[in-house]
Amino acid sequence: MKKLEIPSPKKSMLCCGIMTGTSVDGIDIAIVRFTDEENKHEQEVLAFECYPFLEETISAIESAIKNKSTTKDISWLNFHLSEIYTRAFKKICKHHSIDTNDVYLIGVHGQTVWHETNGESSSTLQLCNLSALAKKTNCLVVGDFRSGDVALGGEGAPLVPIYDSAFLRDIERDVIALNIGGIANITYLSKFDYKNIVAFDTGAGNTWIDLTSRKYFNKKYDKNGEIARRGKIDDELLAQLKEIEFIHKLPPKSTGRELFSEEYLNNNIGDCAGEDLISTLTEFTAWSIAENIKMISATDSIIYASGGGVENSYLMERLRNYLSEAEFRDINSLGINPDAKEAICFAYLGFRTLRGLDSNIPSVSGASKSTILGTIALP
Amino acid sequence: MKKLEIPSPKKSMLCCGIMTGTSVDGIDIAIVRFTDEENKHEQEVLAFECYPFLEETISAIESAIKNKSTTKDISWLNFHLSEIYTRAFKKICKHHSIDTNDVYLIGVHGQTVWHETNGESSSTLQLCNLSALAKKTNCLVVGDFRSGDVALGGEGAPLVPIYDSAFLRDIERDVIALNIGGIANITYLSKFDYKNIVAFDTGAGNTWIDLTSRKYFNKKYDKNGEIARRGKIDDELLAQLKEIEFIHKLPPKSTGRELFSEEYLNNNIGDCAGEDLISTLTEFTAWSIAENIKMISATDSIIYASGGGVENSYLMERLRNYLSEAEFRDINSLGINPDAKEAICFAYLGFRTLRGLDSNIPSVSGASKSTILGTIALP
Repeated sequence: MKKLEIPSPKKSMLCCGIMTGTSVDGIDIAIVRFTDEENKHEQEVLAFECYPFLEETISAIESAIKNKSTTKDISWLNFHLSEIYTRAFKKICKHHSIDTNDVYLIGVHGQTVWHETNGESSSTLQLCNLSALAKKTNCLVVGDFRSGDVALGGEGAPLVPIYDSAFLRDIERDVIALNIGGIANITYLSKFDYKNIVAFDTGAGNTWIDLTSRKYFNKKYDKNGEIARRGKIDDELLAQLKEIEFIHKLPPKSTGRELFSEEYLNNNIGDCAGEDLISTLTEFTAWSIAENIKMISATDSIIYASGGGVENSYLMERLRNYLSEAEFRDINSLGINPDAKEAICFAYLGFRTLRGLDSNIPSVSGASKSTILGTIALP
Repeated sequence: MKKLEIPSPKKSMLCCGIMTGTSVDGIDIAIVRFTDEENKHEQEVLAFECYPFLEETISAIESAIKNKSTTKDISWLNFHLSEIYTRAFKKICKHHSIDTNDVYLIGVHGQTVWHETNGESSSTLQLCNLSALAKKTNCLVVGDFRSGDVALGGEGAPLVPIYDSAFLRDIERDVIALNIGGIANITYLSKFDYKNIVAFDTGAGNTWIDLTSRKYFNKKYDKNGEIARRGKIDDELLAQLKEIEFIHKLPPKSTGRELFSEEYLNNNIGDCAGEDLISTLTEFTAWSIAENIKMISATDSIIYASGGGVENSYLMERLRNYLSEAEFRDINSLGINPDAKEAICFAYLGFRTLRGLDSNIPSVSGASKSTILGTIALP
């Protein structure tokens, strides 16, 4: 009698991770070898690339996120993303001389276009048709990692903490893994308590800075924080932003571009514009991250920062200024390219699913129980 | 070393099938026992129910189908359907004293809100978050059956032929399985050629009749064709409808409410209205089904009709009139409730996925190869 054969995971295997975030800057894709070593997982990153989106893709994603897409647009984008992820997968394999047949699975985040956790009407929508990606790449695909947690009453976020816990812990000091993407989030790993993981979104990451750079300077982001450096902080606006309730909320909490939206900004910036606005938003972003770290009394931790925001040296300067007791360490020292971290994480989440391991953390997400995340599509 | 355990299928097992079609009339749900008998599958239907949708659900689905929903609406509906399918699953199990833990899997069609097969920009979108359905029912879920075929260049439809071929063949006569849902489709099973399956959509099923019944008579459908019987056919409109190109296209072909839309009707009916319009649309529907059966020279087949349209006795009369050589048999004689057929089919497709069996038929769908359909979500 025939049964479905999902190839058994081996002790060591290649996994691909694909991430596209709320910054809509491109496709982060990584090929990682994960190895089981006596219940400890080890990783070796073989390849990482960030392939830019085409303008057509960016505008379709932006439209979806702004709630301006209709059924047809979303159906199209869902399949379009499968197609461009497929191209990215083939391209990275070719570039790094990796045989696509040697890749055991693709763990794909998909493109978040909606995420609302609000009791009865909670929902999350990550686009990329998994079955299409599997058929086109001829590879096992695991995706839709957030929905299972949301269905169990959780926030569906953050998902990186289980990865941080596996690969970033320190036995001598508390560790904070800080990711500055469109939205910023942290994982706090206590040196004492291996089981307790605290993780949450802190608020805006690059989203408002990028948005404003595009609007006033036609630049995708503020390279090295050069624009912010030239500007002058608008104290009144900064004080007003500091009042945003989300920043002061105790964890667990998560947010998205629904709150940190263009609309919110347009309604609240008053006369502030150009480099002054970018300077003020950069200051606010650094402050809000620091404020959240202070809230959990973790100011003397080792901080591994990752995500696009790390490239903004001015933002990082301001952050160091707010957190003078912390030790900022380069995540590269652990063999992890900070830009690649989220892509690696989704490869790891796919790996965990095929290992039958739970990946959500109820104390972090608020879900009623821990569960195996992800949906599986067959080649 | 741990690995993901998907429970092995047994020789005989309970599967649940859930179908909601383009008629948006409710949730068809069936519990079926499938048994492997020396490479032949057998079925025993234990339960079938049709639970009506709430008005809130109907209007959300209608809006999505009409391309009037935005990102947020679709994200909500995707999760909302998981929730109401969960309730339907628990309700049918309770009603028929079936332990939900004894159900091996749920095969779910999901709600089609978009389906466009058009080369490069092909996409299909069936709503119902599979992971949420799996977590809420605590049952293995298989769904999104159309996307894999679409990704391989196919029409993603029809999917029922593999079911018809397994359960409806006759060794002495050709068989036509006719399903009259919102859209009508047929499967032609030659008595000579077990491997060759011809199947395709014939055009409008109940969609235009239902739409017009609602509009002029505030009735969800034309019960027993009573309204159509009273009306007078508008010969000019009928002649015009007969020109619709899709009807005359050779198979493989598939269609949806994008073509057989309210908009099309509004733009083409001229002055025809009320019972005359319903009469004309009923005649057109019967004619177009018959015309397609004539096209494949299958007028002397056994015809097993199923789907909501079977309840419309006037429509069936008109169809018999057009196909006087055919033998119409009651599908009930095979132990299949005609209303339940599609729900049973999706239980069967889920069963096939977990058996590792391909379910699409490239000669029918136009896909480049046969493949295992469906995406798997874990409880």
